Amino acid sequence: MDADDRLSKQIDFILELDKEKNIFRQTHLSGQGRNENDAEHAWHMAVMAYVLREYANEPVDIGRVMLMCLLHDVVEIDAGDTYAYDAAGLATQQAREAAAKERIYGLLPEDLGAELAAVFDEFEADETAEAHFAHAMDNFQPLLLNHSNNGGDWRAHGVTAAQVYGRQERTKAGSQRLYDVTCGILRENIEKGNIKP
Amino acid sequence: MDADDRLSKQIDFILELDKEKNIFRQTHLSGQGRNENDAEHAWHMAVMAYVLREYANEPVDIGRVMLMCLLHDVVEIDAGDTYAYDAAGLATQQAREAAAKERIYGLLPEDLGAELAAVFDEFEADETAEAHFAHAMDNFQPLLLNHSNNGGDWRAHGVTAAQVYGRQERTKAGSQRLYDVTCGILRENIEKGNIKP
Repeated sequence: MDADDRLSKQIDFILELDKEKNIFRQTHLSGQGRNENDAEHAWHMAVMAYVLREYANEPVDIGRVMLMCLLHDVVEIDAGDTYAYDAAGLATQQAREAAAKERIYGLLPEDLGAELAAVFDEFEADETAEAHFAHAMDNFQPLLLNHSNNGGDWRAHGVTAAQVYGRQERTKAGSQRLYDVTCGILRENIEKGNIKP
Repeated sequence: MDADDRLSKQIDFILELDKEKNIFRQTHLSGQGRNENDAEHAWHMAVMAYVLREYANEPVDIGRVMLMCLLHDVVEIDAGDTYAYDAAGLATQQAREAAAKERIYGLLPEDLGAELAAVFDEFEADETAEAHFAHAMDNFQPLLLNHSNNGGDWRAHGVTAAQVYGRQERTKAGSQRLYDVTCGILRENIEKGNIKP
């Protein structure tokens, strides 16, 4: 192909991204569907961010939030998906993802690799309004799917209320409104016995 | 859940979007993988748009391009995927997709539904720099996957050079640079016999 060195690197990165479609999560698609993969999850989060942006606690640069949503799981191509309530996996997650970040964003021309790695770092640091809102989407998206499936993923993993509230609390920093809805959904699933008290 | 009428409509739309993960395309994932679905395709296009934005013929609002990429296939939840070289399907595609647009964006609060439908209309009309670049991604993404699989999708459908050039020519309006790369890839696949002369 007629691509110079810079464009060839960009194309290599793009083809590497394709592998994210083969990283499967614990969440199931609505309608008791199959497991969801990371690429689908990221797409859904990015659209949700746009549709729900009026509920962000602070004004956000929605383009940056969407980009953060799209890129936040790229590292899982190497590091795999770590289930939110897998304590052993969570202990090594950071080191595995840091190595993945170096390798995968390192495929790009240096300026662009550094730029996209910074978007990922901003998400991970979770200190800006954009990162807070992207994290709210990362929680709210599987919550809605799981709730639509009568809490099947929580039941399958024997998840407790303390675990779920611990994770979902992060949504509050991005959107108090969506956190209130989250609490309503959690109460309903605790009452139904889908989440252990 | 503690959602008012507006937020309930937004959540209904978000859950409806989940179905896009079950709309499969003719394109296969790299590494001779399974068929790709619309949600994965849209995610890949949106990230590609950001990574390749320097090659747009004109300056683009990249956030709007990404949103266009993310939303452009939502209508296929009802209308299904129409293969690029399926003449019979293409004849009825517009009517099927118009009805789908009414129903699916109609799930949203009116202001937001009209806003997102306008993004889709802008993509379809293909008159702005953003729409041109989004269309370039819609061509370039499956092209790269298919090329990485030694042109398997072209061979399976007996596609001709005239058909492929006819479709890919649209890329030129969004990015002359990526169109040049496209032509190099097509020449290579014609020489190999993956595309009929």
